[in-house]
Amino acid sequence: MNYKHIFAQAIDRLHEEGRYRVFIDILRNRGSYPNARCFHGHNGPKPIAVWCSNDYLAMGQHPKVIAAMEDALHDVGAGSGGTRNIGGNTHYHVDLEGELADLHGKEAALLFTSGYVSNEATLATLARLLPGCIIFSDELNHASMIAGIRNSGCEKRVFRHNDVEHLRELLAAEDPEAPKLIAFESVYSMDGDVAPIAEICDLADEFNALTYLDEVHAVGMYGARGGGISERDDVADRLTIIEGTLGKAFGVMGGYIAADQMIVDVIRSYAPGFIFTTSLSPVLVAGVLASVRHLKASSEEREGQQAAASMLKTMMADAGLPVMPSVTHIVPLMVGDPVKAKRISDILLAEYGAYVQPINYPTVPRGTERLRFTPGPAHTEAMMRDLVSALVEIWDRLDLEKAARRAA
Amino acid sequence: MNYKHIFAQAIDRLHEEGRYRVFIDILRNRGSYPNARCFHGHNGPKPIAVWCSNDYLAMGQHPKVIAAMEDALHDVGAGSGGTRNIGGNTHYHVDLEGELADLHGKEAALLFTSGYVSNEATLATLARLLPGCIIFSDELNHASMIAGIRNSGCEKRVFRHNDVEHLRELLAAEDPEAPKLIAFESVYSMDGDVAPIAEICDLADEFNALTYLDEVHAVGMYGARGGGISERDDVADRLTIIEGTLGKAFGVMGGYIAADQMIVDVIRSYAPGFIFTTSLSPVLVAGVLASVRHLKASSEEREGQQAAASMLKTMMADAGLPVMPSVTHIVPLMVGDPVKAKRISDILLAEYGAYVQPINYPTVPRGTERLRFTPGPAHTEAMMRDLVSALVEIWDRLDLEKAARRAA
Repeated sequence: MNYKHIFAQAIDRLHEEGRYRVFIDILRNRGSYPNARCFHGHNGPKPIAVWCSNDYLAMGQHPKVIAAMEDALHDVGAGSGGTRNIGGNTHYHVDLEGELADLHGKEAALLFTSGYVSNEATLATLARLLPGCIIFSDELNHASMIAGIRNSGCEKRVFRHNDVEHLRELLAAEDPEAPKLIAFESVYSMDGDVAPIAEICDLADEFNALTYLDEVHAVGMYGARGGGISERDDVADRLTIIEGTLGKAFGVMGGYIAADQMIVDVIRSYAPGFIFTTSLSPVLVAGVLASVRHLKASSEEREGQQAAASMLKTMMADAGLPVMPSVTHIVPLMVGDPVKAKRISDILLAEYGAYVQPINYPTVPRGTERLRFTPGPAHTEAMMRDLVSALVEIWDRLDLEKAARRAA
Repeated sequence: MNYKHIFAQAIDRLHEEGRYRVFIDILRNRGSYPNARCFHGHNGPKPIAVWCSNDYLAMGQHPKVIAAMEDALHDVGAGSGGTRNIGGNTHYHVDLEGELADLHGKEAALLFTSGYVSNEATLATLARLLPGCIIFSDELNHASMIAGIRNSGCEKRVFRHNDVEHLRELLAAEDPEAPKLIAFESVYSMDGDVAPIAEICDLADEFNALTYLDEVHAVGMYGARGGGISERDDVADRLTIIEGTLGKAFGVMGGYIAADQMIVDVIRSYAPGFIFTTSLSPVLVAGVLASVRHLKASSEEREGQQAAASMLKTMMADAGLPVMPSVTHIVPLMVGDPVKAKRISDILLAEYGAYVQPINYPTVPRGTERLRFTPGPAHTEAMMRDLVSALVEIWDRLDLEKAARRAA
């Protein structure tokens, strides 16, 4: 048994497919985001603009968030020192769970160390508690949901992406008495499309299924108070569980679910991924509290983000770049090849100081490799103009396929 | 299908067994840890002393840690804004991985959002990459290791706790050509005993097995530089993977593995729990950097902790309290009943302002419910005297079983 040989082969496969990942080493400049410094190539820090961050609204740089974290750091210190049950339950955690329950109009909420863990732990635990449960999962669900579903040990039925008719067929084919759970996302982050939540809730009612909605790419950004697509579409009360993150639009780190009191209590009491882990640092929780409260009251950031995304999509389409048909703040540019996607990204960073990561398998299906831009309220029109002209130059240089140019 | 009924039954079972968990709501007082404020019972904050924190060395309150976090907060902001691959790889992360690799004398290290995730993601991924791998697991391994082993889908053999002869039998019974992985801990946190690491490494050599050592209750606290029991026993170079936490002795939050470059690269490239999650906040990473560097150079905290643990164990034994035979900083007091353990804990908190959480199933086996004290360098002799006399009073009041009183 030669372990080194097997591990070397696993790494070689990635190189051969052109999807070996090199992490770009950066530091953001506080107060002037999306500007940052890049340490890539070891030629010392070099100024760049970040185009691929999930700190969508630049809340990670918001003065209220920074001030709240500084206060907590001075008040209670760095870490929580324990699990939620053993010494790690601070008053900040209790307050934030109340704030998040209110955000989604639910009775209760529960914090996790990440969005990944909230999906994995909740789906695996909930389904395992329901003997014979069948999980209906959108084919483009995030890796963390897939992990939770697999780890639940339940039967899984995969429905075609956002295809309500296919979901109906699959639901109708099962025993009406079997427990059922429909797991899906609101905004799909690599394409920027949106689920038909109300129609899926109609099916859940008809077939007596529970619903689990991942809103990580929507909370803070949609709805009058940032409650996500479920708030915008006024369907939050129809969903059994809404899951969100504290590490994207809220700008910090962590994840959560919101649901009725009993479901939160069940997950709190039975999910190993919740029970057996040091709770979120109170410093992070304090920052999120400030961020959630700010975004409940202010729509300025949301409006700025939508305007920026709309502008960048238009500029790209006008320039004949193959921007994908997103209906959200996500701006994906199709490349369709992992080596080319990485090449474009490398040129943008080295020659233009524009940082956008290539998105390769397994994050997206093979053959749909792309660049994914996330302009926010702090990306200016001038920056977008520079970015698009750089892209056009690179597209020409590498002889890449263009979209049909729009009529000027 | 009545979902509410099933969930209500799940909660009722916990109440019936006396192990429904009520989280104690606290805030620590920076600069005067283990002193804290308790919000339990909604009678406003009340002063308490914390006896059950895993911030073992009070590093979560160390001025160097606080200052480093404040600097990072001001320099780069709250969150990382992305996964390690997509915008969330900061220079702090790169530096800390170098520091942790050095701590364990390994080529490389890899950060995770928690110790739980580092165990789950690494074990599941490593074993899955080795076709036909058999995992040999100590029967008292932590829930996160059990989750990783289960999620790997591999065959598992459980050896009796710290029983090298049993492990040898199990290894010898398998095909010599099959890939094998031995997963165990150094300090078992609920009993305070220590694994025979060198003997287990001898077996690993003999049977060509990989080794995975969880050092979460040892890093920072054992070894001349805080490299854990594997440093103290001079066996770090014999272990394939050492796993640690940043949320206990280092006082902040997060987890990691240290290993050779190829294994770290494989986990970095294949583990969903590493790839698909927002990276640790740079604020946390900066705090950990300061903490690890401090504890590499200073033994004062480690010595203070050992002295405190030794003193508390002696005081308890002298008072006839059933302190368990721990050889580490963990001071467990056997109760053997979940209802009584909770009752003692409730009286300590309400009447004596001493906070120690009852430890019930599934954290420990049924029938071994206990109180678990973690005195540190900041717990004084006077505090210990007060605690022990409170325990003696409660033991008498509730007519609990005492140990044979030591000769005075």
